[in-house]
This record gives sequence, structure tokens and C-alpha cells, in this order.
Amino acid sequence: MTFSATPPPDPADVGFDVFGTVVDWRSGIARAAAPFLDGNGIAVDPLTIADEWRALYQPAMEEVHSGRRPWVRLDVLNGENLRTVLTRHGVDVARIAAGELDELNWAWERLDPWPDSVEGLTRLKRRFAIGPLSNGHLAGMMRLARFGGLPWDVIVVAEIARSYKPKPETYLRSAEAVGLPPERIAMVAAHNDDLRAARACGLRTVFVRRPHEHGPAHSTDLAPAERWDVEVESLTEAADALGCP
Amino acid sequence: MTFSATPPPDPADVGFDVFGTVVDWRSGIARAAAPFLDGNGIAVDPLTIADEWRALYQPAMEEVHSGRRPWVRLDVLNGENLRTVLTRHGVDVARIAAGELDELNWAWERLDPWPDSVEGLTRLKRRFAIGPLSNGHLAGMMRLARFGGLPWDVIVVAEIARSYKPKPETYLRSAEAVGLPPERIAMVAAHNDDLRAARACGLRTVFVRRPHEHGPAHSTDLAPAERWDVEVESLTEAADALGCP
Repeated sequence: MTFSATPPPDPADVGFDVFGTVVDWRSGIARAAAPFLDGNGIAVDPLTIADEWRALYQPAMEEVHSGRRPWVRLDVLNGENLRTVLTRHGVDVARIAAGELDELNWAWERLDPWPDSVEGLTRLKRRFAIGPLSNGHLAGMMRLARFGGLPWDVIVVAEIARSYKPKPETYLRSAEAVGLPPERIAMVAAHNDDLRAARACGLRTVFVRRPHEHGPAHSTDLAPAERWDVEVESLTEAADALGCP
Repeated sequence: MTFSATPPPDPADVGFDVFGTVVDWRSGIARAAAPFLDGNGIAVDPLTIADEWRALYQPAMEEVHSGRRPWVRLDVLNGENLRTVLTRHGVDVARIAAGELDELNWAWERLDPWPDSVEGLTRLKRRFAIGPLSNGHLAGMMRLARFGGLPWDVIVVAEIARSYKPKPETYLRSAEAVGLPPERIAMVAAHNDDLRAARACGLRTVFVRRPHEHGPAHSTDLAPAERWDVEVESLTEAADALGCP
């Protein structure tokens, strides 16, 4: 027997990139790294650790994209990358308690939202179902939401698709999970690459400029690289643009 | 390189059975069935349709449990079961528009919470991460939460485990998804079978008596079948018992 699985017409969904778009990872990681570095006598600027740690994120996922490595969760990649960064600075990570490294790795689940994020999400949620469409893992996204008060309706992550953005499967399987065709989902991101990949899968696109994501030396994604469906400076402006007073 | 994936110590998670425990499926299904039956000249009590439809739920899942049928989402099973129920009452389902049957099937996503549910969940959420641990599908659980204002932190469903409760995998993979050992998760349900299976997997157990789930003739799960960790009459009482004022 066949059963048409047409989705009900309401509501449409808005998926958010999280790290950089909704939360400020750089300050949060540096804040958590500072006492760790002090306590272990490591004389490196916490912001340098944050930047270098984040810089290993894409190459680590690339190992999974390419198929050289089977699917692995983001917290595992982040934990490995932390060890790599510390080792580069001459730290013998073997002498640091694993629990202490785990604790620092959880900083990715305790990041402050940008000042406009909670209000913007709360307004968008009145009209649309909202959720992260993130490379994070489910447990981490849940704890991050509780930490920052992010009012998600649903958490859809790379873990469900078992592939990372910007792979098309990630967007398409996420759309399937929420039971909507891609064109009824808007992707909100501060990164042109993410939006380009989302658009190629049929999603609508909302560019949020986050010129301080990488700190004062921030030089990427300062402007839309294409004409996106909506282009704004904050999530409250995104709510305005999408008719959510 | 190995990385210890120890979960951070906070928060513990509470997983909820949804149909019957959090929402009143019987009234909601009957409410949606009434205009459908009228409009199609089908002289059957809407509550009978609700009861018979629900009664096919377990046998349909049993086909998946047993391996006789590959994994399939609950909305698909519900759609098939609706056709079975109508056919039994002499309805020629082929003459009804598929869209109209879909519309009635979505009634499973528009069910009222029991009067104590939203307050109980809101209080529990202050201390614990909360989410359904349900046989429903992700999209349906998301829409049901928006319909009834259920303030979930995360939605964990059979669809993630690709197995239905009371199979152990469903509980264990759900625990894995939220990054916690089973003993840090409490299962809240109005059904002894669900709690028995959860306990066998190491979860804590909260029994909520819902003596009207099946209407006036309700005769199952009127009392705890074992000594559960917590036994209450409502989700607000569950909040009291778990220290959530």
C-alpha cells in the first residue's frame, strides 16, 4: 500500500548555522581557555588558541567529506584538534589530565549568543519552526541551547545526516527529517559557502553579516558573495525581513 | 588518536513518552475525524475510529520489530492503518481524495496536551533537559510541540534509532544521541511496558497514571506494575517529585 507523505502546509522551517552565526565562539573559547592555559603554565594568548583551534575545523571535516575517514562526531574532531593546537605550542598533552582537556572541549557547548540572537530567534519562532542546521552534534547543540537560551523547535544536525555541511546530503537529509521540501526551508548563515551549498540544494538563503566573528582581523564573509534572498546585519533584522514583528 | 567522550556533568535528561503520557490522542483524533466522517457520509462514532486506529499502532510496529518489514516512519504506518480502519467499516478508501486522508492523518500532530503537561514540562525544564523519547517521527513531534506549546530542549525519536520502543536499541541509541549514560536519563510514561523496557536498559523510571487515555472504558495501566522510581498522577506532580518547584 502506498501512502502519500505530503507534508502539512504549516509551518515552514528556518535552519540556522550556529557557530559564528548565532553564537560568538571566539570569545567563549578564549574565556574557557584562559584559566586552562594559566593553570598549566602555557604562555599563549587564549584568543590565539581559539583562532587556531577553529582553523582546524574545516580540514578535520574534510577528512570525513573525502571519505578518507568514516563519520565521526564534531566533539571528537574538536577534542583531537585541541591536542594538535596545544602540541604545536610545545605542550606535552600526555601530561594533562584527559578530564581537563574534555572540560575545555565542552567550551563549544557554552558559548554566548550574539546580543541580537535570542530576541531574533524568539520572534522568528512565532511564525516559523526554527532549528540549527549545524555541523555540531545533537548533545552539544542541546547543551548550547540550554546555556544560551536558544528557543529551538527542533535540533537537526550533521549527526542525523551523517555528513557535514557543505555536502548536499546534509541539507537534503535535514529537510527530509523535518518533512519539508528544501524550498520551504530558509538557511540562515554568516558564511557565503554555507549559503551557496544550501541554494544549490534548493533552500532559500538569509545572509547575516557577522563582521566580528574572527575578531578585529576578521576578513572573510564581510559582504554577500551572491545576491541572497535576504541580507541582514542581525537576527532581529532577519525577523523584520521575514515579517516577524 | 583516542578522545574520551565523557559527557559533561550537567544536565541530566528526562525523556517522555508522548502519545497518552503528554498529549490526549483520543479526543484529538476524534475531533479531527468527526468532520471527515460527516463529510464522507460515514456513520461511525469518531471515538470508535480513534480507538480502532490506535489499536493498530502496536501490530503495525510489530511488523518492523520482527524484521518482517524494514524501518518505516510512524506517519506512514498511521496512514496505512487509517485506510485499514475505514475499509473495515465498509468505506471504499479509493474514492476518498488522498489529500483528505493525509489531512486526517496529520491529526496526530495536532493533539492537545493534558491540562498539566505544559506546566509540568516547563518546570522540569528548569532543572533537566527534556525531550520526547517517542515512537513518533521528528517532523511530527516538532509540529505537535508547536501546536501544543511543548517546550522540548531536544526531540529524540525512534526515527533516530531506526527502531521502535520497547526495543532496547531505541532507548540506548536515544541516550547515546543526547550524550548521556542511560542511568542519567529518566523515562516518563503512562505505560508499564515502556517503563519496564526502559528500566531493563538502565534508565530511571517515572510512571504517570493517565486513567482516561482510552476514555471511560480505559482498563490498562491503571496502576504501577512494578515499583517505579517515581509514581505520580500528573506531570506537575512529576515536577514536584523531581525537585522542580
